Amino acid sequence: MRQFAVIGLGRFGGSLAKTLIEMGNEVLAVDRDPERVQAFASLVTHAVEADSTDERALKALGIRNFDVVVVSIGDDIQSSILTTLILKDMGVNKIVVKARNDLHGKVLYKIGADKVIYPERDMGVRVAHSLISPNILDFIELSADYSIVEISAGEKFSGKSLKDLNFRARFGCNVIAIRSGERMNVSPAAHDVIRSGDILIVLGHNRDLKKLEEEA
Amino acid sequence: MRQFAVIGLGRFGGSLAKTLIEMGNEVLAVDRDPERVQAFASLVTHAVEADSTDERALKALGIRNFDVVVVSIGDDIQSSILTTLILKDMGVNKIVVKARNDLHGKVLYKIGADKVIYPERDMGVRVAHSLISPNILDFIELSADYSIVEISAGEKFSGKSLKDLNFRARFGCNVIAIRSGERMNVSPAAHDVIRSGDILIVLGHNRDLKKLEEEA
Amino acid sequence: MRQFAVIGLGRFGGSLAKTLIEMGNEVLAVDRDPERVQAFASLVTHAVEADSTDERALKALGIRNFDVVVVSIGDDIQSSILTTLILKDMGVNKIVVKARNDLHGKVLYKIGADKVIYPERDMGVRVAHSLISPNILDFIELSADYSIVEISAGEKFSGKSLKDLNFRARFGCNVIAIRSGERMNVSPAAHDVIRSGDILIVLGHNRDLKKLEEEA
Amino acid sequence: MRQFAVIGLGRFGGSLAKTLIEMGNEVLAVDRDPERVQAFASLVTHAVEADSTDERALKALGIRNFDVVVVSIGDDIQSSILTTLILKDMGVNKIVVKARNDLHGKVLYKIGADKVIYPERDMGVRVAHSLISPNILDFIELSADYSIVEISAGEKFSGKSLKDLNFRARFGCNVIAIRSGERMNVSPAAHDVIRSGDILIVLGHNRDLKKLEEEA
Amino acid sequence: MRQFAVIGLGRFGGSLAKTLIEMGNEVLAVDRDPERVQAFASLVTHAVEADSTDERALKALGIRNFDVVVVSIGDDIQSSILTTLILKDMGVNKIVVKARNDLHGKVLYKIGADKVIYPERDMGVRVAHSLISPNILDFIELSADYSIVEISAGEKFSGKSLKDLNFRARFGCNVIAIRSGERMNVSPAAHDVIRSGDILIVLGHNRDLKKLEEEA
Amino acid sequence: MRQFAVIGLGRFGGSLAKTLIEMGNEVLAVDRDPERVQAFASLVTHAVEADSTDERALKALGIRNFDVVVVSIGDDIQSSILTTLILKDMGVNKIVVKARNDLHGKVLYKIGADKVIYPERDMGVRVAHSLISPNILDFIELSADYSIVEISAGEKFSGKSLKDLNFRARFGCNVIAIRSGERMNVSPAAHDVIRSGDILIVLGHNRDLKKLEEEA
Amino acid sequence: MRQFAVIGLGRFGGSLAKTLIEMGNEVLAVDRDPERVQAFASLVTHAVEADSTDERALKALGIRNFDVVVVSIGDDIQSSILTTLILKDMGVNKIVVKARNDLHGKVLYKIGADKVIYPERDMGVRVAHSLISPNILDFIELSADYSIVEISAGEKFSGKSLKDLNFRARFGCNVIAIRSGERMNVSPAAHDVIRSGDILIVLGHNRDLKKLEEEA
Amino acid sequence: MRQFAVIGLGRFGGSLAKTLIEMGNEVLAVDRDPERVQAFASLVTHAVEADSTDERALKALGIRNFDVVVVSIGDDIQSSILTTLILKDMGVNKIVVKARNDLHGKVLYKIGADKVIYPERDMGVRVAHSLISPNILDFIELSADYSIVEISAGEKFSGKSLKDLNFRARFGCNVIAIRSGERMNVSPAAHDVIRSGDILIVLGHNRDLKKLEEEA
Repeated sequence: MRQFAVIGLGRFGGSLAKTLIEMGNEVLAVDRDPERVQAFASLVTHAVEADSTDERALKALGIRNFDVVVVSIGDDIQSSILTTLILKDMGVNKIVVKARNDLHGKVLYKIGADKVIYPERDMGVRVAHSLISPNILDFIELSADYSIVEISAGEKFSGKSLKDLNFRARFGCNVIAIRSGERMNVSPAAHDVIRSGDILIVLGHNRDLKKLEEEA
Repeated sequence: MRQFAVIGLGRFGGSLAKTLIEMGNEVLAVDRDPERVQAFASLVTHAVEADSTDERALKALGIRNFDVVVVSIGDDIQSSILTTLILKDMGVNKIVVKARNDLHGKVLYKIGADKVIYPERDMGVRVAHSLISPNILDFIELSADYSIVEISAGEKFSGKSLKDLNFRARFGCNVIAIRSGERMNVSPAAHDVIRSGDILIVLGHNRDLKKLEEEA
Repeated sequence: MRQFAVIGLGRFGGSLAKTLIEMGNEVLAVDRDPERVQAFASLVTHAVEADSTDERALKALGIRNFDVVVVSIGDDIQSSILTTLILKDMGVNKIVVKARNDLHGKVLYKIGADKVIYPERDMGVRVAHSLISPNILDFIELSADYSIVEISAGEKFSGKSLKDLNFRARFGCNVIAIRSGERMNVSPAAHDVIRSGDILIVLGHNRDLKKLEEEA
Repeated sequence: MRQFAVIGLGRFGGSLAKTLIEMGNEVLAVDRDPERVQAFASLVTHAVEADSTDERALKALGIRNFDVVVVSIGDDIQSSILTTLILKDMGVNKIVVKARNDLHGKVLYKIGADKVIYPERDMGVRVAHSLISPNILDFIELSADYSIVEISAGEKFSGKSLKDLNFRARFGCNVIAIRSGERMNVSPAAHDVIRSGDILIVLGHNRDLKKLEEEA
Repeated sequence: MRQFAVIGLGRFGGSLAKTLIEMGNEVLAVDRDPERVQAFASLVTHAVEADSTDERALKALGIRNFDVVVVSIGDDIQSSILTTLILKDMGVNKIVVKARNDLHGKVLYKIGADKVIYPERDMGVRVAHSLISPNILDFIELSADYSIVEISAGEKFSGKSLKDLNFRARFGCNVIAIRSGERMNVSPAAHDVIRSGDILIVLGHNRDLKKLEEEA
Repeated sequence: MRQFAVIGLGRFGGSLAKTLIEMGNEVLAVDRDPERVQAFASLVTHAVEADSTDERALKALGIRNFDVVVVSIGDDIQSSILTTLILKDMGVNKIVVKARNDLHGKVLYKIGADKVIYPERDMGVRVAHSLISPNILDFIELSADYSIVEISAGEKFSGKSLKDLNFRARFGCNVIAIRSGERMNVSPAAHDVIRSGDILIVLGHNRDLKKLEEEA
Repeated sequence: MRQFAVIGLGRFGGSLAKTLIEMGNEVLAVDRDPERVQAFASLVTHAVEADSTDERALKALGIRNFDVVVVSIGDDIQSSILTTLILKDMGVNKIVVKARNDLHGKVLYKIGADKVIYPERDMGVRVAHSLISPNILDFIELSADYSIVEISAGEKFSGKSLKDLNFRARFGCNVIAIRSGERMNVSPAAHDVIRSGDILIVLGHNRDLKKLEEEA
Repeated sequence: MRQFAVIGLGRFGGSLAKTLIEMGNEVLAVDRDPERVQAFASLVTHAVEADSTDERALKALGIRNFDVVVVSIGDDIQSSILTTLILKDMGVNKIVVKARNDLHGKVLYKIGADKVIYPERDMGVRVAHSLISPNILDFIELSADYSIVEISAGEKFSGKSLKDLNFRARFGCNVIAIRSGERMNVSPAAHDVIRSGDILIVLGHNRDLKKLEEEA
C-alpha cells in the first residue's frame, strides 16, 4: 500500500483520488474550497482544506513523506507553479503536475516536476482516433508508430475465424483479445469464430491499422 | 475523408480538432469566443464564431451534413444541453458530447446524444493506474476485469527471456509487445531476451496484473 | 386533501403555493434563498431551504411521495432541467415545470416532465385579448376556435332582455352567465333584463365573438 | 384596427405584442435592449430601441396618439414608475402596467395607471386550480364564488347523457360546452352522450365544482 | 418639543438630524447601513437599522406617531418612492422627501408627499449667487424678484453712515442688519457708521441688488 | 460679465452652472462623463469632456484665465484634492471646492482652496430649521445668534397691523418684508394690515425667533 | 532605542518595519488588512489592525508619542493624504510618507509631511545604473555629479596592485574598499593585489566612473 | 551605447527606462496597457503595446538582440514567470526580473533569470537605516557587515578637522567624502575642517557605524 497526496480536487484530481482509493491506496486529498473537501471527506483517507501555496500548511500535513504528490490545480497556473516549487524544496519524492499548456509544462519541468500531464489534450487525441471510423471504439497510442484499437466486428467478419480471414497476413496486425459481451478471450486462437458485434482488440502499426479500419 | 464539426474549442475540443485534421479529415471548428476562433483559423478547414444555442446560426453552417458533431462546450451545462437538442432536432447523424458529471450526462442521453464522454474523469482513472507502481507507465482499461499495462522491466527481468521467466504461467498475463527504445516488437517470441529499461506491454486480468506490478 | 411540493418561490411559484393552501391542500415549499423560505414559513405546510439539484437534499424531503411536484425555478434553465431529471429518476408521480421558452420546454418533455407551462407567455396572450376592445374585460381560450369573453354591457344593451336583443341569433354566441355587481346569474333566462354595467360572460366561436366585441 | 404600444419586450410583453399583431392590430414595440428590438423587428409594425424614462424619446415616438400603451417593464420598478408618470403627463389615453407586487401596483394607480396587472401571480392562481384534481385541465375564476373548469370525462361518465347523469341536479353546475377532439359542442343538449376522453366545460359555484372534481 | 424621524443618514439627512437634536427635538434616525446607525447612536434620541421599504419594520418603530418624517434616501429612487407610499398609507402626519430630479419629485407629490426638497440643486443656486461678485458672501432668494444678500463693505463705504451714502435712494435696497465681527446690529440707524470689513445684510429687488453688487 | 469654470456636473455643480448662466455669466462646464457633458452642451457657454486630474487637459482649456473655478466633484475625494492642487499651481485666481466632510475640507484649505463648501450639510441645517414649526417656511442663519425666518401668518395675526400686534416689543424681532401672494412689501409700515396666508420675513435673535415660532 | 510606527504593511512598509526591528528599535505596525497584521504579529513590537483615516483609532494607539511615523499606504492616495493630515493635526513629531507620483508628493508636503519618498522610482534609477555595464554590480548616487559604483574586476586588473594600475591617475577615482569573497578590505593600500572576481568599490565623478566602466 | 528592453512600465520599470535613456542608451519599452505605452512614446526609443506572454509578439520585436531585458511586470506573478521563460528560450543574453517575494524569486532563478531584484523590499531596508538617527540621510549596504552612510555633521563636529576629531581611531570608520552644499570633496584630508551642515560620507563596519550614528 502506497501513500498519495492529491492537491486540487476538480474533475481530474477528484477522479484520480477516487481511483487510487479503489485500488487500495491511502490518499490525502487537499483543496482550497471547503465544499469540495467536504464532498471528499468520506471517500478518501483524509480530506483537508488548505492553501497549497502556503509552505507552513504543507509542512503541517507532513506532505514530505508521501510516495507521490499529484498537483492537479486546474486553471490557476501561478498556484500550480508555486505549489510545485514548495514541494520540490521540501524534498518530495515524486511530483506529478497537471499543466494547461506547453509553456506551463516547461516551467514545471524547470522547477523540478518529475512528470507533467495534459489530461484534456490527451483525451482530445484519444477521442479523435475513436471517432474516425464508425467501427473504432477506442484507441490507445503505444508509440509514434504503434497503437491498439478496439474495433467492432461488422458483417464482413461475422461467422469467420481469424484463420478464415487470414487476419495477420492480410492486415499485418495482431488480434490480442476478443470481447463477446461480458466475456473476454485474451488468448484468441486461429480457429476462434468471430460473431457480429464482437469487439476485436488489435495491436499493429498505425499504417496497417488504418487499412483495417477502412476495410472493417 | 470524413467531415467533423467540433463545437467548443477549449483544451479538449481544440486537441480533438487538431488530431482529426492531422489524421486527414475535414473539420469545422465553432466557438463563441473570437480569439479562440482566430487561433484555430489556420489549423482547421473552417473556423467560425457562432453561438451554438442559436438554431439559425447552426443551420447557416449546414451542420446537418457533417458525419459527426462533437459538442465540447466545457463548463456551460445549459449551452451544452440546448446545443445538443438543436442538433438532434436538425437530424444530425452522430452527436458526441462532453459532460461535466453524471447528471449532465444523463440529460444528454435522454435528449438524444449518441455518445457522452467525461475526459477529465477518464484521465483521472488512467493516470491513477499509472501511478500505483513505479514501474507502471501507462494503463488502459479494456473491460471491468481486463486491462493493458505498460510496465518497465527492472533488474529482476533483465537478461531473461519470457520463457526463462515462465511469464504466462507465473503471472497469467500475455506480453503482447516489447518496446526497446524506438523499436517495437509486436510479436514477442518465447526466447526474446528482455533488457533492463525495456517496456513490456502486457494484457491480462486485473487481478493478475496487480500481482505482476507488485513483483516487477 | 392532496400533497404538493413547489420548488421555486418566485412570483409565480409563490402565488401557486398560496392558492393551493387556500384550497385546502398540503404544500411543501422549497427554495434556495433563505429569505424567501422565511417569508413562506407561516403560509404553507412546510417551507424548506434546499438546493433542488442536490439529489440527497430532495430525498431527505421525501419528495417522492408527493402527488404533484411543481418546478417553478424562474430563470435558471440549468437548475430547472437538472431538478426535473432528478425528480423523474426518483419516480415522482406527476412533474409540472415552468419553462422560459420553447427550447427549454422541449428539453423538459424529453427528460420526462408531465406538463410544461409558460406563465408569462400565456398571460401575454390573455391580456392581449382583453385589450382589443374597451368593453372586453377578460378572455379565455377554449380551443383554437372557441373562447369565452367577459364583456361589459354598454348603453346599447341596457334595459333590454336577451330575448329583446335576439342575442343568440344576432351574434351566434351563448350568454352563459351575467354578473351584476356581486351577484352572479349562472342560468340567464331569455327575459332577464340587462342593466348598464352588467358583465356578460359569453361563449362562442372567435369569429362571432369578434363581431360581438365590435358591436357591444 | 387599433394602435398599441408595448414598452418592455420580455416574455410577457413579447407574447402580448405578438398576440395583438395576430389579432390584426398595429403594435409599436419598445425596449432598451437592441437585441430584443432586433428580434421583434419583423414581428410587429415598428420595433424601436429607446429608454422609456427619457421623455423626449417617448415624444419622438408620438406615443401620445396610441389607443393603449402597455408598460411591461419586468423587474425595474423605478423605470416602470417613471415611464408610467411620463406617459400620464403626456396625456396617453389608456395606460396598462405590469407590477411586481402590491406596493408597486399601489404606486402605479396613484400616479395614474388605468389598469395594473400581475401576470405571474395570476397564472400561479390559475395553474394551482388546474392541479388540484387529475381531471381538471384548466380553471378560470369568474368571481370570488363562481368559476369555469375544464374537466376530462372519466369512465364514470362515459356512455351517459347529461340527463342520464342528472348532472344539473346532482352537481349544481352547468355544462356549457363539450369538446370531443377537435369538435366543440357549444350548446350541449340533455341527451348528448358523453364519451370517455371528452372535455366538459362546466360553470358553477366553487363549492359545487369542488364536489364535481372529487367525484368526476 | 416635537418628534421627528429621519430615514436615510447621508450627508444631508445626517446634518438635518443633528440640527434637529441641537434645537431641542427628539429624533429617531433610521438607515439600512449598520455603520451609519452606529455613528449616530450617541447623537440622536434613537438610531435604528431598518429597511424602510418593509412596512412591518416601520410599524414596529411606531413611525405613525411622529410629527414629521423626513425621507432623505439619497440615490435610490425606488426605495424613496416605496417608503413614501408606505408612510402615507400608515397615515403619517407630515412627510418631507428629498428628490433627485423633477420626475422623481413629481412621483413623490402624486403618491402623497407633503413637501419635496432638492438640496443639491438649491445649494447650487444659492452658491452661484454668492460667487457672482467678490463682495457677495451669501444669497437668499425670497421670491422670483426679491432677495437678501450678504455683502462685505469695501473701501468705498468705509467710514460713512447709511445717510452719508444715501443708501436707500441710491440703491433702492434696505440694509436690514450690519455685522461687525461677532456683533450683529439688527436695527441699523441712518447715522451708524460702516467700517471696512463690516457685512451688510441687504434686502431688495434683484435688479437693484445687482447694481449694488457692481458698485460695492 | 465674469467667467466661471465648473468642474463636476452633478446635481450641485449642474444647478450652479445653470444659475450662473441665467445670471448672465460665461460658464465653462467640465466633466469626465461624456453623457453629462452632452446634456450641458446647449445650456452653458462651453461644455467639455476632460479629466481634471490631468494638468495638460486643464492647461489646454486655458482655465488659468477664469475669474472663479468651482470644483464640484462629488464623491471622489482624491480627484477633488488633486484637481485643486493643479489649479492652485496654475495660479487660478479663486478656487471654490465642494467637500464631503471636515477632513476633506481641511486638506483643501491646506493645499490652497479659497473657499470650501458643504452643500448637503448646509441644506440639512437649513431644512431642519424650516421643519421645527408648521408655520416656518424657510430659515436662513446670519450668525451664530441671528437668523431670518419666513413664517406664514395664521389666524392670530390675521386682520391686524404690526402696530396692533405690538410686534417689535412683543417678539423682539423685525419684520423686514411681507409677501402677499406675488406681491412683496419690502418696507412694511406699522399700520400695514396682515392677512391670513401672508408670509412674514422676520429677522431676529434665535431666542426671540423661537418664541415667535411657538406663538405664531 | 527609538519608537517607530509604520502604517501600511505592503512590501515596502513591511521590509522597512522588519529592518527597524532588526536594528533594535520598537515598531508599531498598523494595517487595515487582518491577514497582514497577523503575519507581522510575531515580527514587530505590536501589530494592530486599524483604519488610519479614523482619527479616534490613531489616538487610541497613542501614535502622537512615536518618534517617527511612516505612512507607507501603497496605492490608495486618498487614505495616504487623509492619514497624513490626521497625524499632522495630532502633532506627530516626524512624518515620512511614501508617494505614488509628483502630484501626490506635492499634496503631502503642503499638508505637512516632513519627508516624501518614492521607493519604486528611486530603485528604478539605481537599478538602471547598475545595468549599464556588465561589470557594474551596484550604483549609488551621492550627488548630481558623484557616485559610488561596485565594479567586478576582470582579467585586465587581475594580479595587479592599485599602484601597478596607476588607478587614481588613470581613472580619477578612489577605490574606497575591495571585497574578496566574504572579506572586506576597507583601507585598500597601493600595493594590495587585485584578483579576478574581486569587487572594487569606487567613488568618483560620474564622468570618470563612466570611463572606468568602459575600460574595466 | 547599449540596447535595453523594459517589459512592464509601472513606477519601477518606468523610472528605470527613463534613467537608461538619460544615460544615453537605447530603450524599447513594452507594456500591455495602451495608455502607459502612449505616455512613454516620446520618452524612449520605441514604446510598444504587446502581451509579453505571447512568444510571437516578443519575436516580432526582435527582443533576442537586446543586450539586457528587464522584466518589471509588477503584480502578475504568472505573466512574470511565463515571460521570463519565453525570453530564456529565445536565447536572450541577460534577463533581469523584478520579483514580489522569495518564492517568486526562486522560481525565476530556476527557469533561468540572470538577476532577480526586489525593489520595494530593498528600499524598505535602505529607508529604515536612514530613519534610525536624525542625522543619517542615506544608507547603503556593501556586505552583511560593511555599509556606507551619509551623516549630517552636527554641532559636535563643527569647526573641527578629521584629525581634531581623531575620527578613524575613535569610530573605526573612514570618511570617504565630504559634501558641503553643492561641492563634493572626494579626497578628504586629515586637516580639512568640517562645518555644521556638511554631509560626511562614511564607510565602515556596521558595528562602528552604529556607534558613530549614536554619537554624531
